[in-house]
Amino acid sequence: VRVWVPYDDFATELRALGAQADVYTGMGSDPATVDDVEILVAPYMLPGETLAVAARMPKLRIIQMLTAGYEQAMPYLPDGVTLCNARGVHDASTAELTIGLVIASLRGIDRFARAQLSQQWLHGPRPALADKTVLILGFGSVGKAIEKRLVPFETSIIRVARSARPDENVHGRDELDLLLPAADVVIVTTPLTEETAGMVDAAFLARMKDGALFVNVARGGVAVTDALVAELESGRLSAALDVTDPEPLPADHPLWRAPGTLISPHVGGNSSAFLPRAKRLIVSQVRRFIAGEQVENVVAGPRWPH
Amino acid sequence: VRVWVPYDDFATELRALGAQADVYTGMGSDPATVDDVEILVAPYMLPGETLAVAARMPKLRIIQMLTAGYEQAMPYLPDGVTLCNARGVHDASTAELTIGLVIASLRGIDRFARAQLSQQWLHGPRPALADKTVLILGFGSVGKAIEKRLVPFETSIIRVARSARPDENVHGRDELDLLLPAADVVIVTTPLTEETAGMVDAAFLARMKDGALFVNVARGGVAVTDALVAELESGRLSAALDVTDPEPLPADHPLWRAPGTLISPHVGGNSSAFLPRAKRLIVSQVRRFIAGEQVENVVAGPRWPH
Repeated sequence: VRVWVPYDDFATELRALGAQADVYTGMGSDPATVDDVEILVAPYMLPGETLAVAARMPKLRIIQMLTAGYEQAMPYLPDGVTLCNARGVHDASTAELTIGLVIASLRGIDRFARAQLSQQWLHGPRPALADKTVLILGFGSVGKAIEKRLVPFETSIIRVARSARPDENVHGRDELDLLLPAADVVIVTTPLTEETAGMVDAAFLARMKDGALFVNVARGGVAVTDALVAELESGRLSAALDVTDPEPLPADHPLWRAPGTLISPHVGGNSSAFLPRAKRLIVSQVRRFIAGEQVENVVAGPRWPH
Repeated sequence: VRVWVPYDDFATELRALGAQADVYTGMGSDPATVDDVEILVAPYMLPGETLAVAARMPKLRIIQMLTAGYEQAMPYLPDGVTLCNARGVHDASTAELTIGLVIASLRGIDRFARAQLSQQWLHGPRPALADKTVLILGFGSVGKAIEKRLVPFETSIIRVARSARPDENVHGRDELDLLLPAADVVIVTTPLTEETAGMVDAAFLARMKDGALFVNVARGGVAVTDALVAELESGRLSAALDVTDPEPLPADHPLWRAPGTLISPHVGGNSSAFLPRAKRLIVSQVRRFIAGEQVENVVAGPRWPH
């Protein structure tokens, strides 16, 4: 099997499996013949156009993404080719950032970091994560990874997903009106879809209890920014946001200076945890391909093998 | 039994057990007769002199601290009275702050918080906690609480205590020279004793690997500040410090502006997690006293009951 991958290190590992592996970074000319490429791994964090090369690959079977999202690949997916996403690859990175944002916001680490600039020792009591009720909205791969890390922190956890799954103790989104007032911390991890766009609106935020913390590690568009800014400026809620709408947040946007707001610049998945986990996925997929086993994470096109 | 406690809420709970409970805050006059007080709970975060009243209590059996440290109580402990500390009460609070400091420092949350002031979006890759080797130096109550919270974060953990406990997979401090170079993160949680004062000196820091993170949630005096400042100013190590020497850190101290340094103002135990856990300990101790069972956490004086 010939595979195109975006990193040298991946290619080395795949050759050890017996694959022919070429490094395709998405920039510059073709690394080798396109004639017998069967698996194309999409370059990370580059636009969908880097997949236009797929149209010239007569034997292509699989396009493998390195992101959970795959909308950008759809226009370039040839008929009959299988598209796989990277579900799970970013979980560890995103989940640990989420826990870090929650603790930083509650315990005041962001304030302490800013107070260092003026050399101020801001001693005083702060809310702890311990004993808090944390609502996780979006109980997929990232939501579960967040919960797994939260468990030892002596919190109560409320799981909410699109539809209730009573056997997993997961509530449905239609129960949010009743559940939101119980939560001290609300963490949103849903994908951005037509259904979730603007889901965190003024009414949603109004159901949250006074002093609660809103955490967005999903997509900025899941929340209505103006409604969020209004609650933050009133001082009723606080927020920790790895994603915003718009993004990047322009200078002079009111979110930057809203009280009780901690903003990280969409770095949930952008850490040293990414490459080892991405490599494990690619190696596993190519091994399955060689062995004739079903590849995982199929999100469009036929299953492979058919 | 008559008990003096520093909070109304504790007194209410103890009365429900059948105790006579008076609120003694350590300030102002005696709340009631001292003649039949058997248990005195030390006011929190006040000097040892608040325990001078013990000398006027002829039936006193137990002084109960709300801190792990108890040195400040020793001059006021009457002969034959049992002294108990609050081992465990601060674990949840200190351990969660520790995890927060580690993630904040590695993932750059402190930098993002400062960048908010200038409205800068600092997107870019950062080290993750996942895949790191974390050395916990001091494997008592707090060290174990930190480990318990670290476990789901996909790290490797090295346990080090004063003496090796091979059955618990704990290394002895005499092995540090070999262990330090393997750690990406070194967390110190030891008590401050003659043995540990200045333990983190230039030689200790020199054994840490390039780019490693030093975390102190023990006491400032466990580290030699000048040696730490030198490593931080060189940029070879970074640090997250909840404690410093001196403390509070004076304005213009070089630690405030050392690169890669995150400072929180000794707030490990100072959170909403404290009161509920302190109350559970006091209720448990008074219940044991009433039932004639051994009280826990005896650190000086005779066991009770004798």
